[in-house]
Amino acid sequence: MDENLNLENKMNKVKPRTLSGFMELLPPGQVSFDSMILKLRESFSLYGFTPLDTPLMEAAEILLAKGGGETEKQIYTLRKGDNDLALRYELTASLAKYVALHYNDLTFPLRRYEIGKVYRGERAQRGRFREFYQADIDIIGDGSLNIMNEAEVPGVIYRCLKSLGLESFVIRINNRKVLSGLYEILELSDIATDVMRVVDKLDKIGVEKLSKTLREDLGLSQAQTDELIHFVSSNDNPFDVMEKYRGKSEKFDTGFEELAALQKHLAGFGVPDTHFKIDLSIARGLDYYTGTVYETYLTDYPEVGAVCSGGRYDNLAEYYTDRKMPGVGLSIGLTRLFFVLQEQGLLNEAFLSAPADVLVIPMTDDLTHAVKLATSMREMGLRVQIYTEDKKFKVKLSYANKLGIPFVVFLGEDEISNDLITVKDMENGEQTTASYGILTAGICEKIKALRKGAPIKEHLV
Amino acid sequence: MDENLNLENKMNKVKPRTLSGFMELLPPGQVSFDSMILKLRESFSLYGFTPLDTPLMEAAEILLAKGGGETEKQIYTLRKGDNDLALRYELTASLAKYVALHYNDLTFPLRRYEIGKVYRGERAQRGRFREFYQADIDIIGDGSLNIMNEAEVPGVIYRCLKSLGLESFVIRINNRKVLSGLYEILELSDIATDVMRVVDKLDKIGVEKLSKTLREDLGLSQAQTDELIHFVSSNDNPFDVMEKYRGKSEKFDTGFEELAALQKHLAGFGVPDTHFKIDLSIARGLDYYTGTVYETYLTDYPEVGAVCSGGRYDNLAEYYTDRKMPGVGLSIGLTRLFFVLQEQGLLNEAFLSAPADVLVIPMTDDLTHAVKLATSMREMGLRVQIYTEDKKFKVKLSYANKLGIPFVVFLGEDEISNDLITVKDMENGEQTTASYGILTAGICEKIKALRKGAPIKEHLV
Repeated sequence: MDENLNLENKMNKVKPRTLSGFMELLPPGQVSFDSMILKLRESFSLYGFTPLDTPLMEAAEILLAKGGGETEKQIYTLRKGDNDLALRYELTASLAKYVALHYNDLTFPLRRYEIGKVYRGERAQRGRFREFYQADIDIIGDGSLNIMNEAEVPGVIYRCLKSLGLESFVIRINNRKVLSGLYEILELSDIATDVMRVVDKLDKIGVEKLSKTLREDLGLSQAQTDELIHFVSSNDNPFDVMEKYRGKSEKFDTGFEELAALQKHLAGFGVPDTHFKIDLSIARGLDYYTGTVYETYLTDYPEVGAVCSGGRYDNLAEYYTDRKMPGVGLSIGLTRLFFVLQEQGLLNEAFLSAPADVLVIPMTDDLTHAVKLATSMREMGLRVQIYTEDKKFKVKLSYANKLGIPFVVFLGEDEISNDLITVKDMENGEQTTASYGILTAGICEKIKALRKGAPIKEHLV
Repeated sequence: MDENLNLENKMNKVKPRTLSGFMELLPPGQVSFDSMILKLRESFSLYGFTPLDTPLMEAAEILLAKGGGETEKQIYTLRKGDNDLALRYELTASLAKYVALHYNDLTFPLRRYEIGKVYRGERAQRGRFREFYQADIDIIGDGSLNIMNEAEVPGVIYRCLKSLGLESFVIRINNRKVLSGLYEILELSDIATDVMRVVDKLDKIGVEKLSKTLREDLGLSQAQTDELIHFVSSNDNPFDVMEKYRGKSEKFDTGFEELAALQKHLAGFGVPDTHFKIDLSIARGLDYYTGTVYETYLTDYPEVGAVCSGGRYDNLAEYYTDRKMPGVGLSIGLTRLFFVLQEQGLLNEAFLSAPADVLVIPMTDDLTHAVKLATSMREMGLRVQIYTEDKKFKVKLSYANKLGIPFVVFLGEDEISNDLITVKDMENGEQTTASYGILTAGICEKIKALRKGAPIKEHLV
C-alpha cells in the first residue's frame, strides 16, 4: 500500500466509544442479563400475561399526553420531515395508547407484559442510565377490575424475584384509600397530596424531621402530627391501628377491606409471611395510584432501593377516551437492578455463561468427522462449536478455558478409526476416551445440571 | 362532574395513533413473532453464538464511520446537549465498534448473535418499516478466519428456517473471488464493481436486458458479454463451467477451492442437497463482501425476495483499527419476513397464541380454593389465569373462547367438597369432572403437544 495512503488511513481512524449512560455488557454479563429477562418472561406467562412489544418511538404528543413534569425534560425528541417524534421514557404511555387504539380488537381484562428499552436524557452519573430496560406487567379492566387482581400481583413479584435467585426480600403493601380516608378523618383532605408526598419520605428523613415538616411546612397541629406519625409507623400491628378508624370514612373502610382481602389471599398465591408486610407508610410518589400500592426491597441490601413497585390506578387511557379503564401494574427497572447486583457481587459465578457446552477440537486435516460429530451433538440439544482455526494445540485449549466452555472433545485418527471420542472435562481436567454414546450421555447430564442455576446468587447472611 | 369541565375534558382528548412504518402487533401476532425470535436464539446458540445487546443509540460519528451513501440519508439523528446522536440503522456498525472497543476483553474467533431493532426513516410505503428487527450472526476472527466457518453458516440458516416452520427454500451460494477472478481473466478488472452490480440484477432484468446493459452501458465486447452471461447462468453445472477457468487467475482458483470446500461439507453440516445451490450469478450489492456470499429464497414464494443474506468480509473494524478482523455474517430482516409471511397466510393458525393454558372460573364467592388450585397448577408449568370479574357465566366462558385458552376449569361447592375439579376442553367442548391429579395430567399432556408447533406453517404445494 502507498505509504501516504496508509498514513492518511491511520489519521482517519475513529475512536470507538459507547455513549455514557448506555450499558454495554461483555458476553458473560449479557448471558446473565438475558437469563433474567427469560426468567421474568416465564414467570409472567404462568399468570396469563401476554407479551407486547410496542414501538420505541412515538409521536411526541402521545408521550407527552400525560404531561410529564420533571421526566418530560428528559425525553429524547427528534424530527423527521414534518413529524415531532420522541423516544419513550417509560412503558405506560405506550400501553395507554395501545389499549385506546386497539380497544375493539382486545379482550378485557387484558393482562400484558412488556420488557423493553426506555430512554431518559438524565445527567451522566454512575449507575444512572439513559437507556435501560423496564419490565412491566399490567392488568387492565374495561369499566371495572376486581380486587383479586391486586392480591395476585405480589404472587407474581414473589415468583419473579425467586426465579432470578433472590432470597431475602419483602413486598411492602399499602392502600392509598386508607391514607386518603385517614386524611379525611384528620381533616387534612385539602392538603392530602402534599401530606402524602412528605409522609412517603419517612424512610429517608426519619420521624423527627417528618414531624417538623408536617407542622412547620404544612401547618398540621401537634395532635394531627402525632396521630399521623403513629399511624404510618405502625409496622407491627397495622390492622389493630386501622381498626380504630373504621366507620368514620367510606374511603378508609374500602381501603381497609381491600388490604384485608390481600392479607387473606397472599398465602394462597404462594407468598410466605416472611416476604410481605402491610406497611402503612408507603404511598408511592405518583398521583396516578388510587388503591393498593407495592414496593419491594432486598432485606440485606436496602441501599439498592425499591427493586419493583407499582399499584392500582383508575384511568389508564383518560387522555384518549372517556371509557373508564382501571388497572393494576408493576414495573421492574431491570438495567439498574442488574447493575447494582453486579456491584454488590451478587451475580452467580457458577452460572453457565459460556457460549457453548462443547468445543470440538479436530486433530486431523479432514474435518468431515468433526462436522458430523458436532451436528449429531446439536441434535441432542448441546451447544457445540468446532474449533477450526489453524493455531497451536495450547491456543485451542486455552480458547475453551477463556470462554468457560465446560467440555472439550478431541477427535484424532485413533478415535476416528476406532469409532471413539476423547472428552476433557474442563472443570476437573479429567480426560476419557470411550464411545460417542456413553460420553455424550454424560455430557448432557452434567450440562442439564449446570443450566439449572439462577443468574443471581444471594449470599445468605 | 361539572358539565363544562367534562366538555373541556372531551375536547382535550388525544387521538391515539401509532407512527406509520412501525409494526405494532395484536397479542396473538406478538406471540408468534416472539416465538420466531426465541427459535432463532435457540438455533444460534446451538452453534456457539453468544448474545449481544448493544445500544440502539450511538454517537453519530460511530454510525457514520463507514459512510453510508443512500442509507445515511435515512438515519434518525438527534441532539442532546453537545452530543450528536443517532439511532442505528443496522447492527454491523455497532458490532464493529464493540469489537474495537472491547478487543482486549474478547476471545477470538468471536461468535455473536444480536436480535434487535434498527431504524430507517424510509418513505412511508406498505410493507416498508421504519422500525424493524434484524437478526444477525457474525463470526469474527483476529487476523484470520478459517473457511470452515463459511461452510457452517448455511447449516445455521437451514436449522433456523426449519425451526420457524419453513420447508421449501434454497440457500444460494457464490464466492466473490470467483467473480473477481473471472473479471481478471476477461480483462474487466477496471470496471469490476460496475459489472458486478449489473450482473447481480440478472434475476430482475433477465438475460436480454443484462446483455444490452453490459455492451451499451459498460462497453463490453460481444465475446466478453457472451462469456460472462454463460458463466453466471450456469446453474446446473457450475463446477464444470468453472473448471475451464482454473489456473488462469490466483484469485479465481482460491474462490473455486473455497466453493468446493463448502460444497464438500454442507451435507455434514446438515444441509440437504435440495436446500442449497451453488449459483454463480449472485454477488450481493455491497462492496463489503470479499468471499463467500449467501442469499436464501423461499421456493414457492420468490416474490418475498431474499429472506436472509450475508457473506464473508475481510475488515470488520477498519474504521477503528489497523488490526485485520475478517468475518462472516448473516442477517435476517425479521419484521419484514413476518409481515410478508402473514400476508401470504403462512402463519400457523394452530399455533398456541393464547395468553394462558387454563382459565379457572370460580363458582363460589370465596376464591380461596381457586387461588390454591391455580398456584398448584402453575407449579406444574401450566399458564393459569383465574377469572375474577363479576360477570355473567356466558361472558366468562366467552373470555376463554375469544383468547383461545384451551382449557377451562370450574370450581363450585360440589367440586370443592368432593375434592374434584371440572374441566372443559374448549376444542371439542367435552366436560369432565374427576380428581385434580388425573385431569391436570391430561391437561399437561395436551398442552405439551400444542406447544410443539412452529409459528409458520408452510402449505406445501
